[in-house]
Amino acid sequence: MRIVVPAGGIGGARFLRGLRAVLGTGAGTPQEQSTGSITVIGNTGDDITLFGLRICPDLDTVMYTLGGGINEEQGWGRDGETFTVKEELAAYGMKPTWFGLGDRDTATHIVRAQMLAAGYPLSAVTEALCDRWKPGVRLLPMTDDQVETHVVVDDGDGRRAIHFQEWWIRHRAALPAERIVSVGAEEASPAPGVLKAIDEADAVILPPSNPVVSVGSVLGVPGIREAMAAKTVVGVSPIIGGAPVRGMADACLRAVGVETSAGAVAGYLGADLLDGWLVDEADAGTEVEGIEVRSRPLYMSGPEATEAIARAAVDLAVELAAGKGERG
Amino acid sequence: MRIVVPAGGIGGARFLRGLRAVLGTGAGTPQEQSTGSITVIGNTGDDITLFGLRICPDLDTVMYTLGGGINEEQGWGRDGETFTVKEELAAYGMKPTWFGLGDRDTATHIVRAQMLAAGYPLSAVTEALCDRWKPGVRLLPMTDDQVETHVVVDDGDGRRAIHFQEWWIRHRAALPAERIVSVGAEEASPAPGVLKAIDEADAVILPPSNPVVSVGSVLGVPGIREAMAAKTVVGVSPIIGGAPVRGMADACLRAVGVETSAGAVAGYLGADLLDGWLVDEADAGTEVEGIEVRSRPLYMSGPEATEAIARAAVDLAVELAAGKGERG
Repeated sequence: MRIVVPAGGIGGARFLRGLRAVLGTGAGTPQEQSTGSITVIGNTGDDITLFGLRICPDLDTVMYTLGGGINEEQGWGRDGETFTVKEELAAYGMKPTWFGLGDRDTATHIVRAQMLAAGYPLSAVTEALCDRWKPGVRLLPMTDDQVETHVVVDDGDGRRAIHFQEWWIRHRAALPAERIVSVGAEEASPAPGVLKAIDEADAVILPPSNPVVSVGSVLGVPGIREAMAAKTVVGVSPIIGGAPVRGMADACLRAVGVETSAGAVAGYLGADLLDGWLVDEADAGTEVEGIEVRSRPLYMSGPEATEAIARAAVDLAVELAAGKGERG
Repeated sequence: MRIVVPAGGIGGARFLRGLRAVLGTGAGTPQEQSTGSITVIGNTGDDITLFGLRICPDLDTVMYTLGGGINEEQGWGRDGETFTVKEELAAYGMKPTWFGLGDRDTATHIVRAQMLAAGYPLSAVTEALCDRWKPGVRLLPMTDDQVETHVVVDDGDGRRAIHFQEWWIRHRAALPAERIVSVGAEEASPAPGVLKAIDEADAVILPPSNPVVSVGSVLGVPGIREAMAAKTVVGVSPIIGGAPVRGMADACLRAVGVETSAGAVAGYLGADLLDGWLVDEADAGTEVEGIEVRSRPLYMSGPEATEAIARAAVDLAVELAAGKGERG
């Protein structure tokens, strides 16, 4: 079974680990025992250039998580990380100081910046980095073009647009967002391989990533949403009982005028796109017109729970694809 | 007393610490107790760009040594240094792996690369870095232009030119050098402030730095040697009893066809430049035509010994300047 997953950072990466277990595509699994393939279309809207380094938080979180190099407790950044470079940059008075740039992570960004400067597109750079991490999935950036998520805020000094990372990390999404803008999205093209992977996929599964700035950002690259909508698409709700499972997705949903509920998020993603939607038991009874909603436990409390959620998503996709086949 | 010192790395930096003590120009010394100023003209021929970072080994060694951030035992690199970035770059297969890039040091190179990319000349970058380190001397690069010391070697696969750092660190100067070339030197100009500092100096003191690739590299920038030759110039021999005090200066001297002896090095630097030359007691009796040679202990075995050597150099410069005045 060939599955495509548009993914953000922590939630997406953890879900992918479960999905990988379901399909047996992990690095330790012999090819002949694998029952499918996973292509991840990673969000690059959070990417930022700091200190001359190109930082791709979501691609790296997926890569480190699936490659066994993630800081498990915090869900992002490298295991055993140190912050010498960051402290020294601060000692020189370099700004910003709010970005959590680790030493191990810095090496990744140096390699990426070097390859980009040499003319390689981000997709080629990501493939090269994955040579080391062997994530057991094919990891593609949503685009090789520069797309940056900016947040329009008004902090009393007037309205201004700041980079998503500044809003998310520096202000911890506490500064009310009036609008979230995907700068450059309209002119962007899907990275090489993205549309082909979607076209050849048996299903698209949306992980419980942020629906606005992660999944939404991927869907905002012209051509991707349309290609996915032609497929069987099943999503896993990132909202449980009216609150985000993790992160601050509610702040993003507020900015786009969407209620923080499992049903509202499905509606926001759209019935033209979604065929099926998994919600938590706490949200049982949720109905969204044109979308098959099922409820089951959705907390990714550990590897087994996560694998079970991924399996439920795959099963629902298979079921709905069969129905689509019958109807078609 | 205003003194100009063309300097390389470790030997130059340690000597400068002694000279700073003699003149009382250290950061802890109140301005009114200072009896002079020191302008260091740092060798940049060893500079190299690795991983997109601009690395200036000699400028940094001087800056860290005088600023209290040096690894005292090894004489180069930062105190308390770690090598996480280097290890991670190697894990990605990045080359070269032979350069000892520390994490703390990496931050310095990131700041420098950032400022250079923003259009600042190396002299302005060096000044900005020294804002943090407060070395108690004015540290100028010999030039803002790119000058790179290359070494012509023949390792059996044929003759080729390699960067000085590759020869020095990777091959530990063991690969026989046929020639040492200062690439770009002919088109280079002294950095802003260099010629003025020499012009206003009461004396030029050559520290026991490598006479070929450190002091020689500075002297190779058009205009610097001529400006210095018009001044009272006293040098401290880096060769004691036929061997370099530290480092592998003998390999460099061989490449330029000069014997590894205190007298031969003075002759190599030239009587047109040197007025006085301090040699070790082991080399007492050394005579060089046109140069006043004095012998005294020259091992920089500790702060007091180094200060005494620096004081002897200053005293000899004062004595010879008075004689020059009488003759002039």
